[in-house]
Amino acid sequence: MSAIDACLENAEKYAAGFAGGELSASPKSPVAVIACMDARLEPAALFGLREGDAHVIRNAGGVVTDDVIRSLTISQRLLGTREVIVIHHTDCVMTKFSAAELRDAIESETGVRPRFAMKTFADLEGQVRRSVARLRESPFLPHKQAIRGFVYDVATGRLREVV
Amino acid sequence: MSAIDACLENAEKYAAGFAGGELSASPKSPVAVIACMDARLEPAALFGLREGDAHVIRNAGGVVTDDVIRSLTISQRLLGTREVIVIHHTDCVMTKFSAAELRDAIESETGVRPRFAMKTFADLEGQVRRSVARLRESPFLPHKQAIRGFVYDVATGRLREVV
Repeated sequence: MSAIDACLENAEKYAAGFAGGELSASPKSPVAVIACMDARLEPAALFGLREGDAHVIRNAGGVVTDDVIRSLTISQRLLGTREVIVIHHTDCVMTKFSAAELRDAIESETGVRPRFAMKTFADLEGQVRRSVARLRESPFLPHKQAIRGFVYDVATGRLREVV
Repeated sequence: MSAIDACLENAEKYAAGFAGGELSASPKSPVAVIACMDARLEPAALFGLREGDAHVIRNAGGVVTDDVIRSLTISQRLLGTREVIVIHHTDCVMTKFSAAELRDAIESETGVRPRFAMKTFADLEGQVRRSVARLRESPFLPHKQAIRGFVYDVATGRLREVV
């Protein structure tokens, strides 16, 4: 059985016990979470979020890219969220490789240079501050009164507020 | 108490019961999930994923943008994932507004035209196929043997495989 098939087997059980058919597209909570894709970080468990509660936007690093701004613009303007949590985490792979080397390796292997920015960061807290600053500077987001940035410690399960 | 504070209160409880300190940055499962940010869609519950199991990448629509390709490139090349699940869902807001109208409204309110593509889609299954096709066409992803696309029905909790 492939790993996807194992996921689908669980999805069958999930559907059998499903009771969320009346939930609205507009989240119950005004919070949108922006987090790293890292497997050790589980926003729903961490924040006690259940189906229907909150938007969750995730990418490599939890960094605020144009695609995150696009998603959060839709979240705030069309679906009513007003607060934002940004979470990066300790032991993040984004702090551990050279973007230039990865880009070079991909180009030499494939003949194509990635057109997306492949940024890494050494300074975890600084990167949280930059991500929050990018949100605060965006002209497209109507709600900026409650944007808070955290580092999640994968060794302890604790959040530390940075900004 | 703000909604963020309620999240943080839960995070304190989460940390108090935390037992995942030994988990590796490389996910246990080779599956990376690409899903919409929608609050009704909860990939961890749906697929039975726990902390340390799988990468989860989410944005508005679950569409395959350059930022998703960036994230998945890192997931496959640096952290060992080899299979991909793409999930879009019924009743998605991305099928319900006019991108041109939203862009115009933002520009007229802020004086700045969004530089990010604000694509919407009317054809849900077609959009799943396009997202999977974008992954299969990407020169940057080394593992394309197992990329499968689904529509999640928010009314029933069921997944339907599209491609």
